[in-house]
Amino acid sequence: MSATTPNRALSDDARQAMAHVDGRRLISLQRTLATFGGREDGGVEREALTATDRDARRWLMQQVTGSRYSWHVDAAANLFLRRAGSDDSLPPVMTGSHIDTQPVGGWLDGAYGVIAGLEALLALDAAGIDTRHPIELAIWTNEEGSRFSPGAMGSSAFAEPASLAAFLDSTDAKGTRFETERDATLAAAPEASTIALGRPVRAYVEAHIEQGPILEASGCQLGIVTGIQGVRWYEITVCGSSAHAGTTPRENRRDALMTAARLITAIGDVAESLNDTDLRVTVGRIDAAPGAINTVADRVTFTIDLRHPDEARLMECDQRIFEIVASGSAPCTADIKRLMQRAPTAFADEVVAVVEAAASGTTSCRIVSGAFHDAMHLADICPTAMLFVPSHGGISHNAAEDTDEADLVAGTRALAGVLAALSCNTGAPA
Amino acid sequence: MSATTPNRALSDDARQAMAHVDGRRLISLQRTLATFGGREDGGVEREALTATDRDARRWLMQQVTGSRYSWHVDAAANLFLRRAGSDDSLPPVMTGSHIDTQPVGGWLDGAYGVIAGLEALLALDAAGIDTRHPIELAIWTNEEGSRFSPGAMGSSAFAEPASLAAFLDSTDAKGTRFETERDATLAAAPEASTIALGRPVRAYVEAHIEQGPILEASGCQLGIVTGIQGVRWYEITVCGSSAHAGTTPRENRRDALMTAARLITAIGDVAESLNDTDLRVTVGRIDAAPGAINTVADRVTFTIDLRHPDEARLMECDQRIFEIVASGSAPCTADIKRLMQRAPTAFADEVVAVVEAAASGTTSCRIVSGAFHDAMHLADICPTAMLFVPSHGGISHNAAEDTDEADLVAGTRALAGVLAALSCNTGAPA
Repeated sequence: MSATTPNRALSDDARQAMAHVDGRRLISLQRTLATFGGREDGGVEREALTATDRDARRWLMQQVTGSRYSWHVDAAANLFLRRAGSDDSLPPVMTGSHIDTQPVGGWLDGAYGVIAGLEALLALDAAGIDTRHPIELAIWTNEEGSRFSPGAMGSSAFAEPASLAAFLDSTDAKGTRFETERDATLAAAPEASTIALGRPVRAYVEAHIEQGPILEASGCQLGIVTGIQGVRWYEITVCGSSAHAGTTPRENRRDALMTAARLITAIGDVAESLNDTDLRVTVGRIDAAPGAINTVADRVTFTIDLRHPDEARLMECDQRIFEIVASGSAPCTADIKRLMQRAPTAFADEVVAVVEAAASGTTSCRIVSGAFHDAMHLADICPTAMLFVPSHGGISHNAAEDTDEADLVAGTRALAGVLAALSCNTGAPA
Repeated sequence: MSATTPNRALSDDARQAMAHVDGRRLISLQRTLATFGGREDGGVEREALTATDRDARRWLMQQVTGSRYSWHVDAAANLFLRRAGSDDSLPPVMTGSHIDTQPVGGWLDGAYGVIAGLEALLALDAAGIDTRHPIELAIWTNEEGSRFSPGAMGSSAFAEPASLAAFLDSTDAKGTRFETERDATLAAAPEASTIALGRPVRAYVEAHIEQGPILEASGCQLGIVTGIQGVRWYEITVCGSSAHAGTTPRENRRDALMTAARLITAIGDVAESLNDTDLRVTVGRIDAAPGAINTVADRVTFTIDLRHPDEARLMECDQRIFEIVASGSAPCTADIKRLMQRAPTAFADEVVAVVEAAASGTTSCRIVSGAFHDAMHLADICPTAMLFVPSHGGISHNAAEDTDEADLVAGTRALAGVLAALSCNTGAPA
């Protein structure tokens, strides 16, 4: 944790931008955005590319005026608010996040990064700051992935335009195609001009709620995010023989559920024995067939979600999991399938340093993100970092998701400082 | 295992009855019954009180003629074929089983006991035997319990008539009431006269397939069933907290699925450590919520089916299970609920001895039934025993269920001897 010290490392512009963040306006904007799809219990239903999402986008477009600003959309329906720079031919410094939610999400997941970015731009205006680089606020399409799979479609298509073609055929639970809803969303914002996917970006910084308990537990108001954990997903299927619970002696059984329980326990034991606070091992799903109280199960499927910031540790755990499944499945058989893997993301030191400098007026600590974010894809194409604010009880994807208003303001102040520093200083990363 | 010796302990009548069992007729009747609800894969779909069940009952009623026989039904739609005795005021010696199946059952489960009983009566006719006691063949209603819950409705209502009232309101998956289907089944057999539930019975002997692997593994053609295991059913609910798989450190988790896996493993370890071949412990059902690959589960429910022939052992295991759940659920909480329990059934020594005598011409062994049968309820009201034939691979409730024809014939021969012995001899149990 950094000590609470004045942020002397920042430029005057950056300090001015931070000073002009209007906390009341920020909270007002944040609460108004939450009314689009808002529920009585405080949750928000605003899945990607729905009418509610389109309404929220239109409302956002009404929040800024003036010749300095312009709105743009790309072929993934990513929406960009551009604040012109004094040398507008330079690649933009970018911030942003997403406004789509889980079927029932909280009011801050994604939305905070968009509103914090908007307020940061308004603070630059209020401080009368002209930046050398243009600054863009990105509203990325379908980060959650709950309506259309996979998640983070918008930011991944931005970073790798060739990936868009496969996304167009993705359908939601009602069979509606992503492409259809993308087109409807583009049509609902005719005043936004079309802009290319895959443009050069000077640097990307995303503010987000932590969605975990670490900042709160360590008393940090801000998290300097140095990277994103790598993740590997597995599906293990244990096959045995169904048998009558009363007539079949233990020695004649091939009990897929008892075998699965032993495998899960062994995997939990390995996770515990490594005593590595950065390691995350989760068995979240299990299905047993036939699933009758008086029948030995013949088929059990369970999943593993494995995460760690270090690829070598992931490979070590991967090997241990395969060994456990291979050696512990008798008298059943077990099959293990890799569903997905993504290597750890290390953010750019020079951007992390700017975030740390902007956060130095608060209590802050370095943290690795356990969740995926749009920043993961931006990190593939430009110097990137993130900034976290604490989540009450670590709760997210839930109506109870919340963060202290003072923390939301502190995060926005830091973000304004980062954007000013990166877009004004010639020493910013190229 | 008994040695293969002549059955000198049996009367001449009993030996004559056994000698007149017609194996070809038995198999023919058995295969014809299997056509009611028969499937191409050898399975049978004949759930209780369906039109198929009614058709099979009508067919059965056409298989015997002659003034010695009469058909009867009671208020549980149990169907009885009565063969008059020389002193028809005496309580009947009874045999039987059920012809209803699981949604997809095998051709022998239940049906074998009915057809073996029918062939035994025909063998008595062929041998010209008049018995002192009447003999009744019972076709019990809804033994399987898959369409209407609970199972063994017919035999339990027979043994305890007051239980019928609660069964009448039982509905199947389509909402059809048991009472409605019972009435339709009674109406389809108008030639059967109504007879009371809860009549006195001199003795009950039921032939059945083992539905387990023990006889086959030990090379026994017949099983002398000395009782039925006691059973206790439990449902354990583990409550934790749902959390993001990536953002939540292990020490902050209350992982209901990992806790459930550890509890199941511990229960399996206890079952193993007791090294008791009569003990059956099955976890057949597990459900995890929310059930997402990247979310720590907050609620897992699993069941335990515990069986043993000895009540003291059941109580010991019951206590161990409660201890494991109480001590092993932290940091989650766990709740354990007793769903059902039934004490072990000990069959009557004197009837078991007659079965053993009738089986003495074959390889046979004493066995405890791991499955429930109608005989369990009859044992509450009269001297009772059962006779098992082997099941290929222990498979039942499955289209692959099968038994060697020679074993089916051997079981029927023994049953005919038992019925003759019990109904002719004055020394039979009272």
